[in-house]
Amino acid sequence: MRINVINPNSTPSMTALIRRSAERVAFPGTVIETHNPLSTPASIEGHADEAMSVPAMLDLIRAGERAGIAGHVIACFDDPGLGAARETARGPVVGICQAAVQVAMTVAARFSVVTTLPRSVPIIEDRVESYGAGHRCRAVRAVDMPVLALEEDGEDAIARLVRQIEAARDQDRAEAVILGCAGMSDFCATLTARTGVPVIDGVIAAVKMAEGLVHAGFHTSKLGSYDFPRPKAPAHGAAGAGSIASATR
Amino acid sequence: MRINVINPNSTPSMTALIRRSAERVAFPGTVIETHNPLSTPASIEGHADEAMSVPAMLDLIRAGERAGIAGHVIACFDDPGLGAARETARGPVVGICQAAVQVAMTVAARFSVVTTLPRSVPIIEDRVESYGAGHRCRAVRAVDMPVLALEEDGEDAIARLVRQIEAARDQDRAEAVILGCAGMSDFCATLTARTGVPVIDGVIAAVKMAEGLVHAGFHTSKLGSYDFPRPKAPAHGAAGAGSIASATR
Amino acid sequence: MRINVINPNSTPSMTALIRRSAERVAFPGTVIETHNPLSTPASIEGHADEAMSVPAMLDLIRAGERAGIAGHVIACFDDPGLGAARETARGPVVGICQAAVQVAMTVAARFSVVTTLPRSVPIIEDRVESYGAGHRCRAVRAVDMPVLALEEDGEDAIARLVRQIEAARDQDRAEAVILGCAGMSDFCATLTARTGVPVIDGVIAAVKMAEGLVHAGFHTSKLGSYDFPRPKAPAHGAAGAGSIASATR
Amino acid sequence: MRINVINPNSTPSMTALIRRSAERVAFPGTVIETHNPLSTPASIEGHADEAMSVPAMLDLIRAGERAGIAGHVIACFDDPGLGAARETARGPVVGICQAAVQVAMTVAARFSVVTTLPRSVPIIEDRVESYGAGHRCRAVRAVDMPVLALEEDGEDAIARLVRQIEAARDQDRAEAVILGCAGMSDFCATLTARTGVPVIDGVIAAVKMAEGLVHAGFHTSKLGSYDFPRPKAPAHGAAGAGSIASATR
Amino acid sequence: MRINVINPNSTPSMTALIRRSAERVAFPGTVIETHNPLSTPASIEGHADEAMSVPAMLDLIRAGERAGIAGHVIACFDDPGLGAARETARGPVVGICQAAVQVAMTVAARFSVVTTLPRSVPIIEDRVESYGAGHRCRAVRAVDMPVLALEEDGEDAIARLVRQIEAARDQDRAEAVILGCAGMSDFCATLTARTGVPVIDGVIAAVKMAEGLVHAGFHTSKLGSYDFPRPKAPAHGAAGAGSIASATR
Amino acid sequence: MRINVINPNSTPSMTALIRRSAERVAFPGTVIETHNPLSTPASIEGHADEAMSVPAMLDLIRAGERAGIAGHVIACFDDPGLGAARETARGPVVGICQAAVQVAMTVAARFSVVTTLPRSVPIIEDRVESYGAGHRCRAVRAVDMPVLALEEDGEDAIARLVRQIEAARDQDRAEAVILGCAGMSDFCATLTARTGVPVIDGVIAAVKMAEGLVHAGFHTSKLGSYDFPRPKAPAHGAAGAGSIASATR
Repeated sequence: MRINVINPNSTPSMTALIRRSAERVAFPGTVIETHNPLSTPASIEGHADEAMSVPAMLDLIRAGERAGIAGHVIACFDDPGLGAARETARGPVVGICQAAVQVAMTVAARFSVVTTLPRSVPIIEDRVESYGAGHRCRAVRAVDMPVLALEEDGEDAIARLVRQIEAARDQDRAEAVILGCAGMSDFCATLTARTGVPVIDGVIAAVKMAEGLVHAGFHTSKLGSYDFPRPKAPAHGAAGAGSIASATR
Repeated sequence: MRINVINPNSTPSMTALIRRSAERVAFPGTVIETHNPLSTPASIEGHADEAMSVPAMLDLIRAGERAGIAGHVIACFDDPGLGAARETARGPVVGICQAAVQVAMTVAARFSVVTTLPRSVPIIEDRVESYGAGHRCRAVRAVDMPVLALEEDGEDAIARLVRQIEAARDQDRAEAVILGCAGMSDFCATLTARTGVPVIDGVIAAVKMAEGLVHAGFHTSKLGSYDFPRPKAPAHGAAGAGSIASATR
Repeated sequence: MRINVINPNSTPSMTALIRRSAERVAFPGTVIETHNPLSTPASIEGHADEAMSVPAMLDLIRAGERAGIAGHVIACFDDPGLGAARETARGPVVGICQAAVQVAMTVAARFSVVTTLPRSVPIIEDRVESYGAGHRCRAVRAVDMPVLALEEDGEDAIARLVRQIEAARDQDRAEAVILGCAGMSDFCATLTARTGVPVIDGVIAAVKMAEGLVHAGFHTSKLGSYDFPRPKAPAHGAAGAGSIASATR
Repeated sequence: MRINVINPNSTPSMTALIRRSAERVAFPGTVIETHNPLSTPASIEGHADEAMSVPAMLDLIRAGERAGIAGHVIACFDDPGLGAARETARGPVVGICQAAVQVAMTVAARFSVVTTLPRSVPIIEDRVESYGAGHRCRAVRAVDMPVLALEEDGEDAIARLVRQIEAARDQDRAEAVILGCAGMSDFCATLTARTGVPVIDGVIAAVKMAEGLVHAGFHTSKLGSYDFPRPKAPAHGAAGAGSIASATR
Repeated sequence: MRINVINPNSTPSMTALIRRSAERVAFPGTVIETHNPLSTPASIEGHADEAMSVPAMLDLIRAGERAGIAGHVIACFDDPGLGAARETARGPVVGICQAAVQVAMTVAARFSVVTTLPRSVPIIEDRVESYGAGHRCRAVRAVDMPVLALEEDGEDAIARLVRQIEAARDQDRAEAVILGCAGMSDFCATLTARTGVPVIDGVIAAVKMAEGLVHAGFHTSKLGSYDFPRPKAPAHGAAGAGSIASATR
Repeated sequence: MRINVINPNSTPSMTALIRRSAERVAFPGTVIETHNPLSTPASIEGHADEAMSVPAMLDLIRAGERAGIAGHVIACFDDPGLGAARETARGPVVGICQAAVQVAMTVAARFSVVTTLPRSVPIIEDRVESYGAGHRCRAVRAVDMPVLALEEDGEDAIARLVRQIEAARDQDRAEAVILGCAGMSDFCATLTARTGVPVIDGVIAAVKMAEGLVHAGFHTSKLGSYDFPRPKAPAHGAAGAGSIASATR
């Protein structure tokens, strides 16, 4: 079984980090493939970064489907383009936020999320709510570090994460904590060890979910809103990237 | 990895049926064990049947934990005693309703459920809502057959299920349909084939979820509401089953 | 009119305490009967304790119905087995949590709950939400004492309760406070007097609700999900308590 | 104990009808008083009729409090001015919609409401939702008769009500039906008898709730939003009714 | 285009203040008319004050409609009588709370509200929830000053508002703040300047919304619950204001 | 005041149609500019079409901001990229779905939406829910025509729309109907005339909302989640459009 784990940003070291986590937990028969687009933002911190990443991510989904990939994981905690990816694929598509939330709802009655920048907090709150876990989620917290800084200063990142996880346990009465960024995946075991709190990494959660769905034969439903996109070209043929037509008054 | 699939009712033929589904989809390394209590109702159709099944089911969970079971599946669509089982176990505990809902939310934007008796409809609606999928669930439908009748007259059961699944597709615009009773598990492939609708069986969903959780090292959180029950005896020693103390005026 | 007030745990001193509260507020014509099972946990602190109490509690409901009891009160704040009890009875069945919430929604726009152990907080939150008062409930607080310690050290209990009630008033802006454990019933008047906050005891609330329902002629609806359980024996006859059948691979 | 049952519209025959229902179910020690304002609309069918009824209704609450009334019932299914009445009274104030919903949530898992005119449907839906029963309410139906027509042609009213109650049972799978207008109170027993469906009348529900609250010593909380209105005169002294000041450009 | 901005309380200086804000932002072609009733409370602080203001406010709506007013603004943050006003008018009726919430949901992902007295907090929470912004609203805060004190001591009011707005930004992570009282309208620009937080005034929001609706030709729908009130007199003719009929036992 | 009305698909005839509607309702002083990208899908029917349209749409927003545009309208009913656009702009950004919902919530208590293809129904349901109008929206209906077919056979489109609008009025009891596609904008007046139902077009609603916001001086909040995207290049420099980097195992 080949699982495609896509990092929608363009930072290869982050893709490598995601790969390490995915391979560590994959079943023996699973082949983990990891990809990232070249042209997308170096990290995804907000709606616009998400939007700039999705078209190239969909190309990777499409390429994977042609190449016999059985299931797809979107390894960015905002789950950018999840609906679009499901339209594009016949195999199941798992977002790391949704998968982490599903694990959290299974192993704990209440959880909190810890992410990178405060600006992502409302985005993640909305995702968690749309996955039906708003009433289970005590808080979405932020360590106030950009995504790429997690790699640059791992010790600082871990110290800040420990602080927020302990606050989640003590102030929020969270029974588990979800890491709200794929770039935190490497710290997961360390954080559980240091805090005693069950820490849930979405990359791990999503890989296991994808393996299970594929092995059991589940596909994305093509009845209704996740049907393949209707084939269509731009109205006037493809123009060069970035060129803009305007029909101003 | 040993997964304990517990049928909380006392009907061995239903346990055998559940076992067939579980084994069909288990990963090669997974050992599926199936159990049912002897003393519980022959089928679970309502709150009282649930309540009468849970204490003996918890005994099976406890026995499994002692015997080295890694994860537990509760194979009744009402997910009876799910919270109690999670308190009792260190391994993850997966209910077939919750697991089916999680699969449905991954492969479809809207789904319906088809269960046995109309009296179970509000119970299942409440479960689906508590798992955060109320807004994704178009309807809970009933074929109006008791649980054990599914086995007795399989052809009638399939005909009624096909009718409801087609109604879910055409009237509810459901993109997938969940089978709302463990006793329907055997029909799953047939129903997908006959209707073209992705049909989701909770036994299959839960086994895959449990395997993934165990393999990735997830446990039930013991911080907070799923902590082990505080040890306590009855206030006046154990009395014979069914005996009742009263302190009437 | 005979009202059955059932303490689902097996501690007679707690049953006596509940009886005192119930009798203090009953109408002249009401006969309060109190019961507790002998075989259930000494206190109910979590899902598993609940589950272990319900079957014997249903026996008491059934016995009461045969004996001409007109209405039933379940005197544990988790409202364990409420649905099962309603299936079992023709008379109305009132849970002390639901009744307290209904009183709170009538006399105050916002309320908080104070319970015993932190582990019960999510359970009570979910109950309050299911009774439709999530948006009215400011917080569920815990004094961090086991249920039976309330009796053992009443002065400490009152001091802790006063602290939490004042916090509910000052920090949550609660307009009333619900006592989240039947074992706190005796303290109700004292707590109102000391804090000036309207304190609502579920035992009192439920007795009045039950009297009113019975006197007006309301019964539990037998159309649909609260219909009597379908009669059924275990599939293989009743086995001795605790014996377990397994059909292991 | 004196309970004030206020009909906020100005139709004395409807007040008399409400009185009959209230007296039929009152406990022996309860004195039912009924009142209606003279100056309000003859029936309440919409937001504006509600608004025109509340000030005079508050006068009746205030007069009742001065006269030693212990509890108040607002006998219009829109529960007009419920918050304002609670600010005005120290005794508990019960609305017939809220009380009926509380009874329905106790004796049935799902219910429907049948009211008079279609224009009231969204108003009642919003009330039911605000009382936390949106997920329990299958539908709000209308017989499409004005309020006062209920009295004029009782046989037609009963026939239409039977039709809607049966539709609620068969199409909505309602387990109980609430009568969505105080003017239907007289038909309650007949409707239950003809349809076999438990029919809940808000006047009855509210009287029992009010009796219970008063007897147990509950008052409206004066901490927070139901505190007495701050005393204040119009900025420029009371003008004749209907006179209008304008400060047009 | 003539827009009627109604201050439902009877304080002319507050009407003048509202007028200043409305005129400051009106389009050149808009004629702002402002009105207040003479007989209503001097300020609106709670449900009862609201109720006492609505009948005279509806008279002003009716008078406006006869005089050719195209759209109406209710300039009290509780949006008292909004449904009744919509029944009464053919032109669109905009409440300043609803309009402010709509602006906030357009320019910010999360917002807080700052109002006058703590007793208004639950009222505003309920309004915000009914407008569908409960999940976007971080908190409703109060400066703990009566409405009319805002005018009397503007510097104190501004200082308290600044404190709460900064708390909303720093503790709630609000991205914008809504002023929860029409009497704060004059401070809006100052508060934005002092705090750097986008501050939204409902009077401004509502005037712009009303202008847009009118100019585009929108009217209040007369299909259903906002249809004109059915014409009806009091059952026994109009009595003098305040006179009370009673049909006591 | 210059308002940028962006059609995110690449079909110029649809841009022209949108322009006609926008100009018809604009205030005299408003300059309407309309734009569409050249490279996006010819119509937007699903998540993937949305995703393929957003990057070029953001370029148009950015270009508009540089050129002195004061406010932006996204003229596709899915409101694609609304959050990303708000991050990108200082001026307010109005989506036609959100604006239509806000108008509907002002002029009607309940509404339905009529869109093109059934596959868009869940997408629109989720948008409406996220704008807080789930409880006000009776149904999202589809005429089952692709977007571009609306132009090709206007008479058929109008006939199908009339049928669905009448069903919304009669079966859903909708008090107003929202047109769920920018391409229906031209039919708005005709549909109101033929059905007597208030029909709300999002293009019109959004233009009026944008004018009002701009004229009153509102901007998108830059505190928090709508702050400008943090500047960042792709990790490895920009590659040619469509080229894909992979770091496969």
